[in-house]
Amino acid sequence: MQEQYLKIDPWKIIEQEWNPEKVIASESIFSLGNGTMGMRGNFEENYSGNTFQGSYIGGIYYPDKTKVGWWKNGYPEFFAKVLNAPSWIGIDVRVDGESIDLATATVHNFQRILDMQKGCYNRNFEITTPAGVRLQVSTTRFLSLKRTEVGAIKYAVTPINQNIDLELCSYLDGIIVNQDSNWDNPFWKPLKQQNSPSFSALLNRTNKSAFGVCTFMTNTFEVAGGSPLEPSTTTASDERIGTHFSQSLAAGSTATLIKLGGYLTTLNHDENALIDTAQALATQSMKRGFDTLLEEHQKAWAEIWNSADIQIEGDVAAQQGIRFNIFQLNQTYSGSDARLNIGPKGFTGEKYGGSTYWDTEAYCLPFYMATKPPEVARNLLKYRYQHLDKAIENAEKLGFSNGAALFPMVTMNGEECHNEWEITFQEIHRNGAIAFAIFNYTRYTGDHSFLLEMGLEVLIAIARFWAQRLSWSTQKEKYVMLGVTGPNEYENNIDNNWYTNYIAQWCLLYTQEQLEWVARTHPEVHAECITKMGVGEEECQQWGAIAGAIYFPISEEHGIFLQQDNFLEKELIPENQLNPKERPLNQHWSWDRILRSPYIKQADVMQGFYMFASHFTEEELERHYDFYEPFTVHESSLSYCIHAVIAARLNRMDEAYDFYLRSARLDLDDYNKEVEEGLHTTSMAGTWISMVEGFGGLTFENNSLSLRPKLPDCWESFTFKIQFRGAVLQVHQSKEQTKFHWGGDQPLSILLHDKPLTVSPS
Amino acid sequence: MQEQYLKIDPWKIIEQEWNPEKVIASESIFSLGNGTMGMRGNFEENYSGNTFQGSYIGGIYYPDKTKVGWWKNGYPEFFAKVLNAPSWIGIDVRVDGESIDLATATVHNFQRILDMQKGCYNRNFEITTPAGVRLQVSTTRFLSLKRTEVGAIKYAVTPINQNIDLELCSYLDGIIVNQDSNWDNPFWKPLKQQNSPSFSALLNRTNKSAFGVCTFMTNTFEVAGGSPLEPSTTTASDERIGTHFSQSLAAGSTATLIKLGGYLTTLNHDENALIDTAQALATQSMKRGFDTLLEEHQKAWAEIWNSADIQIEGDVAAQQGIRFNIFQLNQTYSGSDARLNIGPKGFTGEKYGGSTYWDTEAYCLPFYMATKPPEVARNLLKYRYQHLDKAIENAEKLGFSNGAALFPMVTMNGEECHNEWEITFQEIHRNGAIAFAIFNYTRYTGDHSFLLEMGLEVLIAIARFWAQRLSWSTQKEKYVMLGVTGPNEYENNIDNNWYTNYIAQWCLLYTQEQLEWVARTHPEVHAECITKMGVGEEECQQWGAIAGAIYFPISEEHGIFLQQDNFLEKELIPENQLNPKERPLNQHWSWDRILRSPYIKQADVMQGFYMFASHFTEEELERHYDFYEPFTVHESSLSYCIHAVIAARLNRMDEAYDFYLRSARLDLDDYNKEVEEGLHTTSMAGTWISMVEGFGGLTFENNSLSLRPKLPDCWESFTFKIQFRGAVLQVHQSKEQTKFHWGGDQPLSILLHDKPLTVSPS
Repeated sequence: MQEQYLKIDPWKIIEQEWNPEKVIASESIFSLGNGTMGMRGNFEENYSGNTFQGSYIGGIYYPDKTKVGWWKNGYPEFFAKVLNAPSWIGIDVRVDGESIDLATATVHNFQRILDMQKGCYNRNFEITTPAGVRLQVSTTRFLSLKRTEVGAIKYAVTPINQNIDLELCSYLDGIIVNQDSNWDNPFWKPLKQQNSPSFSALLNRTNKSAFGVCTFMTNTFEVAGGSPLEPSTTTASDERIGTHFSQSLAAGSTATLIKLGGYLTTLNHDENALIDTAQALATQSMKRGFDTLLEEHQKAWAEIWNSADIQIEGDVAAQQGIRFNIFQLNQTYSGSDARLNIGPKGFTGEKYGGSTYWDTEAYCLPFYMATKPPEVARNLLKYRYQHLDKAIENAEKLGFSNGAALFPMVTMNGEECHNEWEITFQEIHRNGAIAFAIFNYTRYTGDHSFLLEMGLEVLIAIARFWAQRLSWSTQKEKYVMLGVTGPNEYENNIDNNWYTNYIAQWCLLYTQEQLEWVARTHPEVHAECITKMGVGEEECQQWGAIAGAIYFPISEEHGIFLQQDNFLEKELIPENQLNPKERPLNQHWSWDRILRSPYIKQADVMQGFYMFASHFTEEELERHYDFYEPFTVHESSLSYCIHAVIAARLNRMDEAYDFYLRSARLDLDDYNKEVEEGLHTTSMAGTWISMVEGFGGLTFENNSLSLRPKLPDCWESFTFKIQFRGAVLQVHQSKEQTKFHWGGDQPLSILLHDKPLTVSPS
Repeated sequence: MQEQYLKIDPWKIIEQEWNPEKVIASESIFSLGNGTMGMRGNFEENYSGNTFQGSYIGGIYYPDKTKVGWWKNGYPEFFAKVLNAPSWIGIDVRVDGESIDLATATVHNFQRILDMQKGCYNRNFEITTPAGVRLQVSTTRFLSLKRTEVGAIKYAVTPINQNIDLELCSYLDGIIVNQDSNWDNPFWKPLKQQNSPSFSALLNRTNKSAFGVCTFMTNTFEVAGGSPLEPSTTTASDERIGTHFSQSLAAGSTATLIKLGGYLTTLNHDENALIDTAQALATQSMKRGFDTLLEEHQKAWAEIWNSADIQIEGDVAAQQGIRFNIFQLNQTYSGSDARLNIGPKGFTGEKYGGSTYWDTEAYCLPFYMATKPPEVARNLLKYRYQHLDKAIENAEKLGFSNGAALFPMVTMNGEECHNEWEITFQEIHRNGAIAFAIFNYTRYTGDHSFLLEMGLEVLIAIARFWAQRLSWSTQKEKYVMLGVTGPNEYENNIDNNWYTNYIAQWCLLYTQEQLEWVARTHPEVHAECITKMGVGEEECQQWGAIAGAIYFPISEEHGIFLQQDNFLEKELIPENQLNPKERPLNQHWSWDRILRSPYIKQADVMQGFYMFASHFTEEELERHYDFYEPFTVHESSLSYCIHAVIAARLNRMDEAYDFYLRSARLDLDDYNKEVEEGLHTTSMAGTWISMVEGFGGLTFENNSLSLRPKLPDCWESFTFKIQFRGAVLQVHQSKEQTKFHWGGDQPLSILLHDKPLTVSPS
């Protein structure tokens, strides 16, 4: 059993006790975000205990100089880092001249709640200060979903046992550093500050990348029943400026600070206008008032839940897990800006630096595609299109030519950030996921505009990459792919990874097919694209010829595709026979030992069976699953979800349920003992996949929405919603039946357990 | 044609002109060493131009914290670095109050000479200072081979065109840093200093490794015809102390400074006694006098040349090359201290940090074994024996047990320093070279004492490693070796590298055989070893069983052993069809492209054919050479020599000659454009191999010394000497005949071109 210090609740994450050793973990769990900015659940008041401070702004990064032991040709010069931004939440609370500090005070009745339904983070606690003053504190914080440059804090203080002199110093803090920094270079340069009683702002610019960021705040303060008090300004240091209120406060009376703050950046404004615009926004927001802002915000969350909630009856832990995952995904990415993407830790930590991995296309896209209007998923595709030139440059550095593109393993702005040769140069299947996402989006939404306007170019560049990357084996008389790393990163520099070869083949054929389709249906687009990309009939046919002659390693004995040429050379001891003390392997075994072992970090062949489900029979699926599952150690957070889907397809519901829970509660139960570093945001989309595509059995193939809902034994029912062609389809599965609620105008034809069914509008 | 700014000369390295852009290259070329300490050819006087300052002391290192991009389990915490030590050579020459500086003065008649016969480094030049003074300077420097803690400088200054006020400030410089530093941590901690007119000393301690080092000097100064002058002391800064002389000097008269200096370390002395001992040594040495020290030193060099010189008639460039190589090898390692070893750059640079690679056993041992008394090579073997416990610990970290040892890839003190998984964890053939060296030493010297006293333990630990590292393939019904890097580092994480499998098999069988031999011949040693190592009959038989069932990849089509399982899957385009602009590949191709190419960095299968020459027929050798040579790009300095030996065996003398020259003049002609970083010291032993084992055809197999001398077309003759069983055998090969000179008492039976011959004592 994993550790559970958080209370199980369907809608809320609740921490019920003061756990100093859990502060950093809770800072991750109680993170807030609104797609534009985010922050860890740090305290407003001073805290001298261990803490990991983090505030992040989407799209604002620093190109940190790469750190390597031994430089290899082709490594990128920089690794773009998510930036810890100046913090606007700080409130120094002084009682009779002494700052309160939960690390030194005695804490009573501590409680914090993340209300996922409303998108609010509340804390309530009492403390007895070292001087003996007992104080009640109550806070509410949110980052507005509606006005994404603004966040709000209500901070209320009530002395309980005596009258006090209360001072509140609300401040902006520019003295911040990244934990994830290669060389401890300063990431930020202070440009300017403005500090008046009614408005404070720090204007900073990132070094090298030169993003301008204005961190601002405005505050009001009142004692219950009284009128707002006048503040004065304070400057603690050059980079910490603030507003200061002081007031004598009688025992039992409550003083409340309303603080509004946030960021304006040069992503959306001129640098020169940042401070003035921020001031106007602050004034206007304060006029609107905390309660109105909160109301708007909750309304926005209600809309999200309305089209994306998943209900599970009979299993509150599973219910809480899926909602936490959906909540975090919505906090991380709203889809309104194609320059942003979904980092593996969202806005909850610094690890993994760059923002975009293949996670986006392979795991996140299905979630956003099925719970949002198409524009959201389309912006994820557009993000890559914007990086096409950089991907072509990247491939050129590796010796490719003629417009072949290799999209980066990790990126912010299209440039490769990652620098481990076995991943950066060899884990090239990511290119396939990007092409697949175009296919996946187009088939599900029915929207061909992306393909016509941008997608075709991306597909052509990717097809060119594969055509050059495959090489001819005179021994096999087939095209082979030497020296790759598949999704299972526990094998490096292998030959003929089945998944990579398969998706390469698929890319070549799909690109060929789409080019033909566009030629037929949109000849003018085709003509323009042919000219722009310089792609001829011959090249296109060559793709087909190569695709038709790709080699796939197989085992006749086992009746399976082999993960790679030499997989069967390994000592095939099932993972359940390993010494439990040596798990996870990546913390106990040296890298070479892992590499020559058969243990699979995350779905590899199974990833292909998941993505290309209709290409294989259920018997084939079962054979491969039975072969590979016993070697799969799931040491990637992205592994459970795929195995959950496949286990559900194979009616192995207990197994599917276990995998689902590992994914859904990975962070809440801290399975990997690393939640302190931040949440596994992209794997949360995997949880959604395991729920909707696993238990719901959702697929979309051959132009047909298909469902095969299956209920785990321990659940009463589940209900999920998907957006489909402009309306919401709700699917309810109980022990007895499947029920639908369809919000469209016209009847909807689907397949239910492979049988045609027409769902009428409700 | 490579750049040749150095004059071709049989015994000397001569730079004839002032080349400011060649200063750093020449600092490498003109390096001095005496096996205990060494230094680059830096100027004594101030120099404001580009320079790479370096003084090194054998066995004194700093464990620098490892630098990696992405940490992998098993990586070592530290990388031991060769240390740039405090410098004792500095002499600030002031003319009328201004320091001379070759970067700002006009330089005339500049000449420097490294006299390899005498082991001396001379510089002569004239300068005109910015103030118009013309000055003649003449210097001689050597590091005593006889008294290895002492070096000497004679520095003579003559004003030519006017009388001057001359000041000479001779100093010790503790303000030094390593260029090769991971984190710019300070490597040295100053402890104490002593500064009197007759003696100066800096006592420093290395951080972390805590080696105490006393850098000392003593000076005398006189004007020609006068008596020695009194110095005064100076302190330029805390870490730069010195002795100051001043004198009015008439035009045409010469002032000469004699400076003796060097290091005493806690490797050989108590830290508390270092300064006093140094003072005694300095006083005694100065009493002995510069000329006597030089005489002793030259005598020691004469002895070296007497037993190790190689003469080539008709090719001065080749002659200079081999002497330069022999000279540097003798400067680097004297074999008197088993704690020292041979770094890839000797005492000429910092690159490659740690001191010991497999270079020692695979390339250097034959040179020292055949040109020195057996104790020298024996100390190289003993070095590894001293590290056996650490090698067992190292293997344990990688998951091995029961006393299996993996010797480190790079080391100073037995701990692994290297941290690139594909090398550190996978280039395990190094273990084989260490076992082979024991075999090689024992068969050549006939001395079994090392085997009995230490070698057997090393062999057992290595055999255990291989027995555990090989794994059973149920497909092949053979033992396979998955996930290794062979000598060709342009392939990583490959399966069944033929060379590694072959040497593993050989190790298992040789260990088994030696255990049996010891049991028969030295039962008491055998009993003791069995008890100490806990090795039983069963384990020993198991080694034989495994050895007998090891898999070797072959190509029936080509009739060859394959470098690794999938070698033939590659696109086999010969290297001479590559674009010359893309050479060397490692500077132009990304790592993944190199890895999936067939290009071989250095002898791999051919390394095995070189080491186990008698196991294969000449037809087999030829077939393999013809297959692999066309893919060999020789981008390691250790590649030419092996191919030279094999080409000579195959009577391809032009090819052998080309390879020989590439190896012999690698640094003098700066083929790789990197001589500035230091010399390729260990590959110099490879040059000797290509000469003596290549052109000389020296082998020792089946208890017989065998020679097959062959003369390259462009040579008149060559003559080499080897130490064999206590005497020197000289072999002279001219176009007409082979002549021998044998210094032993008894006739010597050899094979000459495979025919028995008895060589009488001369």
